[in-house]
Amino acid sequence: MTSAQEKTQASGPLVLSIDAMGGDRGPATIVAGLGIFARRNKDAHFILHGPAEELRPLVEKRKLADRCEIRDAQGVVSMEDKPSHVMRNGQDTSMWSTLDSVRNKEAAVAVSCGNTGALMLLSMVRLRKLPGVNRPAIAVLWPSKNPQGFNVMLDVGADIRADAEDLLKYALMGVSYARNGLSLERPRVGLLNVGTEEHKGRAELKQAHELIAAQADSAGFEFVGFAEGGDLSGDRCDVVVTDGFTGNIALKTGEGTASLIGQFLREAFAYSPLSRLASLLALTSLKRLQARIDPRRKNGGVFLGLNGTVVKSHGAADATGVAAAVELAYDLAQSGFGARLAERIATAAGAAEDGAAESGLEQKKDGTDP
Amino acid sequence: MTSAQEKTQASGPLVLSIDAMGGDRGPATIVAGLGIFARRNKDAHFILHGPAEELRPLVEKRKLADRCEIRDAQGVVSMEDKPSHVMRNGQDTSMWSTLDSVRNKEAAVAVSCGNTGALMLLSMVRLRKLPGVNRPAIAVLWPSKNPQGFNVMLDVGADIRADAEDLLKYALMGVSYARNGLSLERPRVGLLNVGTEEHKGRAELKQAHELIAAQADSAGFEFVGFAEGGDLSGDRCDVVVTDGFTGNIALKTGEGTASLIGQFLREAFAYSPLSRLASLLALTSLKRLQARIDPRRKNGGVFLGLNGTVVKSHGAADATGVAAAVELAYDLAQSGFGARLAERIATAAGAAEDGAAESGLEQKKDGTDP
Repeated sequence: MTSAQEKTQASGPLVLSIDAMGGDRGPATIVAGLGIFARRNKDAHFILHGPAEELRPLVEKRKLADRCEIRDAQGVVSMEDKPSHVMRNGQDTSMWSTLDSVRNKEAAVAVSCGNTGALMLLSMVRLRKLPGVNRPAIAVLWPSKNPQGFNVMLDVGADIRADAEDLLKYALMGVSYARNGLSLERPRVGLLNVGTEEHKGRAELKQAHELIAAQADSAGFEFVGFAEGGDLSGDRCDVVVTDGFTGNIALKTGEGTASLIGQFLREAFAYSPLSRLASLLALTSLKRLQARIDPRRKNGGVFLGLNGTVVKSHGAADATGVAAAVELAYDLAQSGFGARLAERIATAAGAAEDGAAESGLEQKKDGTDP
Repeated sequence: MTSAQEKTQASGPLVLSIDAMGGDRGPATIVAGLGIFARRNKDAHFILHGPAEELRPLVEKRKLADRCEIRDAQGVVSMEDKPSHVMRNGQDTSMWSTLDSVRNKEAAVAVSCGNTGALMLLSMVRLRKLPGVNRPAIAVLWPSKNPQGFNVMLDVGADIRADAEDLLKYALMGVSYARNGLSLERPRVGLLNVGTEEHKGRAELKQAHELIAAQADSAGFEFVGFAEGGDLSGDRCDVVVTDGFTGNIALKTGEGTASLIGQFLREAFAYSPLSRLASLLALTSLKRLQARIDPRRKNGGVFLGLNGTVVKSHGAADATGVAAAVELAYDLAQSGFGARLAERIATAAGAAEDGAAESGLEQKKDGTDP
């Protein structure tokens, strides 16, 4: 999407393309989440994709009919479908239709709860990668000790591989996201590794360290060097860059740890009659904690590096989670994020010092393996 | 160490070799931790390594003089020292001396708070790898939803690489640790990946999946297949196997997440006078929670795959943490863990179906890069 098109969007109502299908809890939950979001944002319009006969009563129940166009699509991508199968045979699916609304410039941004691998591959095929981007990435907001409350981490699973050039692009895309999503003027970037000393880690990380350091000044970010797992929730950097294998495992490890501590907390307060009494008195404090670590509050991975913005909601998201994902998509669309990211990547690609790196990129273009 | 030697140890007092130096808080903290452990375990004896003149008053202060031999070593390995430098020039250090007490069969197990990379490399050089083990691993106990309260994860950072054969050995070593350290008869093993479907992940993981599955029955464990980051603290498996790069980042991500939630919890209860009052009433419950997530309770990574057991305590450990690491070393030595692990690896190597895999291992023996 170009700047001009985003301006057109901004002058009319902002339109969001929503995949009603593919979530673990079915379309009723997704439309309920849309309802929550719609009550808070009166000006947004929607194109909702899925079986029309199933969606119509849900849309009417949530009083969305005047702001929501239903786009009939009978096929559904399941969590078990192989991405390559969907790419070849998924033309009738709600996911395909959702992305095509962005492709055709009818909507500013797409949101889906469906199969991540299929959504990423379809996004690459239907929206195409930005010039200069070999591997798109999925970025998430990670609760942190920083004043802004969150850090950006990418890639959390678009691709299990990333070479040094990819990691540089992730840094640039993450900086763009931090600037638009977290309002940070000069984000601090860290490169995830097993130690902060420069001699540590894999060869491609040392190479990426050099590439990212060389672009920091011209691209307006601060490079803090290598970061460790603890920095994901720490305050040493705002953007943490890693490959999709490591990022995915870190993301799920963090979620698992939070879930375990939540269970321990409940058990600690259910231990005895006295502790149950204490929990009543502590209820407000516990709810305050809950609100801060609730993964539903910032639900949504953002696909970066495509011609168009796609937000992937957690498959198991409830209505609150879906509303958060739609809100994130809305905020990004409003800030003109897509166009700014594209400009940033184009500038950086132009500024790349040697043509060799560029031609190296060209050669690898078919190497994506989601 | 052979079974016979361990029996000798068991008939006399069990001797632990302790590196007094290299911890962030200095030798006073380490000797204090030893004092805590010694009060709970009246029969254990120690060889304490470091500058004698500095250690003597500390040992006397903690009333350990009759159970603790001081072994003078003037050199100290710092956190900044490169492992290769220590290997070439570290003969006079307390770390070297600590390992040599195990090498010389004076002690059943070694404990150090020092530089992990140096400790691992020195351990490989002084204790040597077990026959059949190409890359030793560091295993930790990870708090989990399982009845035993912990899962075993390895490798958390001995080596940033691991091929399929290494991952198989990690599985076997992790099973041994779970059996001896967590009293699980038939541990369930998972292989860390970005999804549980068999087609996902890197090539070496698919190969490792096959190797581990083939050994499950003969080695007496259950293989649950691929595991995800969330399974580290979950109840789907008891042992999670991964390479040291991924494992190190997962470990520090989990620790960082726990630290962040701890901070949020304190802030939630410090928010208002009422919440501060509630926190007083909830104090017992909060302490109960604290005890369950306190990383000091199970402080200590265990080096597996060597002729002898080495426990690496966290460098920043306080006296409570040091005591926990010494306790872990003591428990492992008492269970005859080292000999059992060696037997398990020897049996598995003998049972390996094709000689090709074995000769492949031989060729790679010089490839270790800590």
